[in-house]
Amino acid sequence: MITIAYARNGFADKFGIPRQPLRDSIIETKIVFTEEYRVAEALRGIEGFSHLWLLWGFNNNNRKEWSPTVRPPRLGGNRRVGVFATRSPIRPNPIGLTAVRLLEVRKTDEGQVLIVAGADLQDGTPIYDIKPYIAYSDAIPDAKCGFVDEVDFPMLDVVWGNDARNNHDSMGIQNNRGYSLVSREEWEDILRQDPRPAYQDDPNRIYHITYKNEELSFRVEGKKLIVTEVSCVKYHRY
Amino acid sequence: MITIAYARNGFADKFGIPRQPLRDSIIETKIVFTEEYRVAEALRGIEGFSHLWLLWGFNNNNRKEWSPTVRPPRLGGNRRVGVFATRSPIRPNPIGLTAVRLLEVRKTDEGQVLIVAGADLQDGTPIYDIKPYIAYSDAIPDAKCGFVDEVDFPMLDVVWGNDARNNHDSMGIQNNRGYSLVSREEWEDILRQDPRPAYQDDPNRIYHITYKNEELSFRVEGKKLIVTEVSCVKYHRY
Repeated sequence: MITIAYARNGFADKFGIPRQPLRDSIIETKIVFTEEYRVAEALRGIEGFSHLWLLWGFNNNNRKEWSPTVRPPRLGGNRRVGVFATRSPIRPNPIGLTAVRLLEVRKTDEGQVLIVAGADLQDGTPIYDIKPYIAYSDAIPDAKCGFVDEVDFPMLDVVWGNDARNNHDSMGIQNNRGYSLVSREEWEDILRQDPRPAYQDDPNRIYHITYKNEELSFRVEGKKLIVTEVSCVKYHRY
Repeated sequence: MITIAYARNGFADKFGIPRQPLRDSIIETKIVFTEEYRVAEALRGIEGFSHLWLLWGFNNNNRKEWSPTVRPPRLGGNRRVGVFATRSPIRPNPIGLTAVRLLEVRKTDEGQVLIVAGADLQDGTPIYDIKPYIAYSDAIPDAKCGFVDEVDFPMLDVVWGNDARNNHDSMGIQNNRGYSLVSREEWEDILRQDPRPAYQDDPNRIYHITYKNEELSFRVEGKKLIVTEVSCVKYHRY
């Protein structure tokens, strides 16, 4: 497989990346082409499409042997389903498939890049192919979706602790560690999807997510996600 | 890339395979797993999904160098578009992506096979991955589709010549060459999509398609496709 591009975004690590992205997500990813494929003509006409397919590589460094069944997080991580009935990254060919919204084709020092929203990709993910989304063959809104239809996957209400909100907002001005690069809306987009491992439900457990140059801590009580702390960190990309 | 399965259907060669399949196509393809992946558990739960994604290999034997632009048949084959704005098979990684309807998970001598409808794959195409279609992330019915939206792609009316129809129907009984394996509905499904190369429009030109064990000849006058001849051939698969 040839890597034609890399994804660049604020997700330094896996935790926090939406499992299957929301259609209206505002979380942006930049797609930067490798030198050989950094050719403006290869994108001619792509701006006419509102959505694109990304075919990309799962990062399976610690990948075990192929397993016929997997435990989807959506089923609480305790029910086994055939791998071809899931979108699990642990599969014979570790290729991911994601529909994203195309926001912009942008000229940069790295050639023309694509700005997309709604990608469930970690920063640095290799991209193997970009295809236009073609509604008449790809959109099947009434498709029956097996175990995915069975489980409810409610959004959480995001509640900011006072200190956390002040901390976040003050970074927007500038503090001794630099500017914040994350809007409150971005954080809420990430958090309402419930980033916890699906089989955990301890209201006292504190989780930490890094996105762009912020680290955020939260806990979850029922359907309420409470942001307990925000601080500035070095990492950012995009 | 690991080949996990092969597509089996009646399309001995490329001509006649729908370019992007119709959602309601009745043309069936059987997906037969290779020995290593012929494991019933790997399909557990798949019967709950009405549609699947196939990731498959384009047959690019005579593939040239990567070209930044291609000429989609849909645009009459004379307008160049960036390769990443098309579903053209001539692309850096020759991987096709098709949503198909899952009709049946069938037990056979070759293990459990999937019977799907609406695949735009030639007989023998290697399949790299099978993923469930998940409506909430994959179905975007209002997606804007660039040049695909610009062009009208009307269905043809299929008209059978008397001899051709009699020939076809008599094979259903049995003639000296054997049974017909193709229904008239199947032929009409294939033909109404206008299998001609997009840049040809000569009402006198006769085209020949082989599907399963029949060869059919036709010509096209305006929006009318006239079947001129049907005969029995040796080839069949599936």
